[in-house]
Amino acid sequence: MRKGIRNELIAVLLQNQTQFLSGEEISQKVGVSRTAIWKHIEELRNEGYEIEAKPRSGYRLVYRPDRVAPEEIIPHLHTQQFGKEIRYEFQTTSTQIAAHQWAKEGAKEGALVVAEEQRSGRGRLGRSWHSPPHTGIWMSLILRPKIPLAHAPHMTLLASIGVSKGIQRVTGLPIQIKWPNDLLINGKKVCGILCELRGEQDRIHYLVTGIGINVNTMETDLPPELKPIATSLAMELGSSVHRASLIAVILEELELIYTQYLAEGFSVVRTEWEKAAGMLGQMIKARTTQGELSGKALSLNENGALLLQTEQGVVPIYSAEIEW
Amino acid sequence: MRKGIRNELIAVLLQNQTQFLSGEEISQKVGVSRTAIWKHIEELRNEGYEIEAKPRSGYRLVYRPDRVAPEEIIPHLHTQQFGKEIRYEFQTTSTQIAAHQWAKEGAKEGALVVAEEQRSGRGRLGRSWHSPPHTGIWMSLILRPKIPLAHAPHMTLLASIGVSKGIQRVTGLPIQIKWPNDLLINGKKVCGILCELRGEQDRIHYLVTGIGINVNTMETDLPPELKPIATSLAMELGSSVHRASLIAVILEELELIYTQYLAEGFSVVRTEWEKAAGMLGQMIKARTTQGELSGKALSLNENGALLLQTEQGVVPIYSAEIEW
Repeated sequence: MRKGIRNELIAVLLQNQTQFLSGEEISQKVGVSRTAIWKHIEELRNEGYEIEAKPRSGYRLVYRPDRVAPEEIIPHLHTQQFGKEIRYEFQTTSTQIAAHQWAKEGAKEGALVVAEEQRSGRGRLGRSWHSPPHTGIWMSLILRPKIPLAHAPHMTLLASIGVSKGIQRVTGLPIQIKWPNDLLINGKKVCGILCELRGEQDRIHYLVTGIGINVNTMETDLPPELKPIATSLAMELGSSVHRASLIAVILEELELIYTQYLAEGFSVVRTEWEKAAGMLGQMIKARTTQGELSGKALSLNENGALLLQTEQGVVPIYSAEIEW
Repeated sequence: MRKGIRNELIAVLLQNQTQFLSGEEISQKVGVSRTAIWKHIEELRNEGYEIEAKPRSGYRLVYRPDRVAPEEIIPHLHTQQFGKEIRYEFQTTSTQIAAHQWAKEGAKEGALVVAEEQRSGRGRLGRSWHSPPHTGIWMSLILRPKIPLAHAPHMTLLASIGVSKGIQRVTGLPIQIKWPNDLLINGKKVCGILCELRGEQDRIHYLVTGIGINVNTMETDLPPELKPIATSLAMELGSSVHRASLIAVILEELELIYTQYLAEGFSVVRTEWEKAAGMLGQMIKARTTQGELSGKALSLNENGALLLQTEQGVVPIYSAEIEW
């Protein structure tokens, strides 16, 4: 209920940005007391909204902060299920942890956790992920696909395609997919994807797809060790990107490819992925836990493993660091 | 420490079952006060041990209950890692739940949760599993195999082989494996296996293999709906089976096939499995969530899916109820 009032208040202020509205008028439009309106305006101001107040004229919205709250995402959202329920955190340990918890409590397919800041964001293989406040998209999407456990790695590839298409639609930047879970611009990492799941032998209980994107990160925000290898959309574009609308577009692209995959199977993902991958046909090095392999990157197998043409024959790579 | 005293007390009583030992003698052998000995004897009695006490002579162990506690399992155990750490519960909701919790806290490979009774034992696909007290083996083994997520279903097949060999070694009964996770004797279910896991795209964080075996269950213990389809080792054998030693032998067989699998790959599991499966070469029905399929059961594919020769060609079955 409280969220409803707040969203209506923002909507009313947005629709009237060129004029002042009296507390009385706002109170009538939103349908709550003037005291309640005043409290909500104070709350918005604390979160970075600038709302001008002029004696005898009323209130006017001057500046709306770049936030990834549901009320900012929902107006841009054109999906059936993805992002229809959103949990928004100002600061969290990791959206993955929050999403796992929510999934266990019964979150529906498409439920989304999004945060302004992660104190201990997680990457693949237990690595940490740098997630400074308000500059990136740190979100986790809960999915419940009825697919065999053996096909779970398809979901990472599928997510790479969806996110990559969303970014391209909004920014026009050329994105390269690096197997298994990175998106690159001009050879530098701009996004990482982490699919975690809980399941049993022939069923996935739930899957949490974590997506971390450096959006408005400036070079000065990056720790020294990341500067040579990481970039952001803003750094590549030369201007900032509205994060909430980017989230909405990404969710739309993700839902599209996910629906296609469930209906038509892995071939649709494989075709799209092979088009977008930067490494196919090239000589690459794959560092696995069993040692280093060199060879030509050929394609994906049915399980989503990368097929490598080595001197010893074709080897499927399930987990590795790739260099080329 | 308290467990240590208790185990020593049991050992001392076991070594002296033909004679009475005075409280003073026991106290000296175990190295604690007579009061402590007396307390531990009371505790053992509460758990079903019968310890005769004779004035001026002392104590004598008359009856040792059939328990699956670590002190009963360990003397029979010949493994490197499996069962080296055991959490024993008299009664628990489900050993799977307890094992997930322990795995998250960092349990090592081979750690085992075992219970006398499960209040809400779990089977495959969220089904309940009937686990009456003291009659069966209800246990969950924690594993951390370094294999791709896509190969996780191998673990169910591997576990079927290990458990089936263990039961055969101890009882001599002919076991048939029914894909994906049941063990049958004369067409009736005697054991179910449930592999659950948590992982990410290219790594398994941990796997919990739940094993439920009807050991000394009598026909009267079975609910009416299970009578036509379930059996127990004791019902088939006509005599009871020592559960703790059976657990030890199963762990040994499991460790053996697991080690072979990690070293040599899936082919070793596939060969063993295809030998033990009762359905290969036969016409079967597979009820999947997408509908019913009929055909000849051929073999397993690389992912552990069952290959079915239907009129439409060869179809891999990832999840189904099988009838033949």
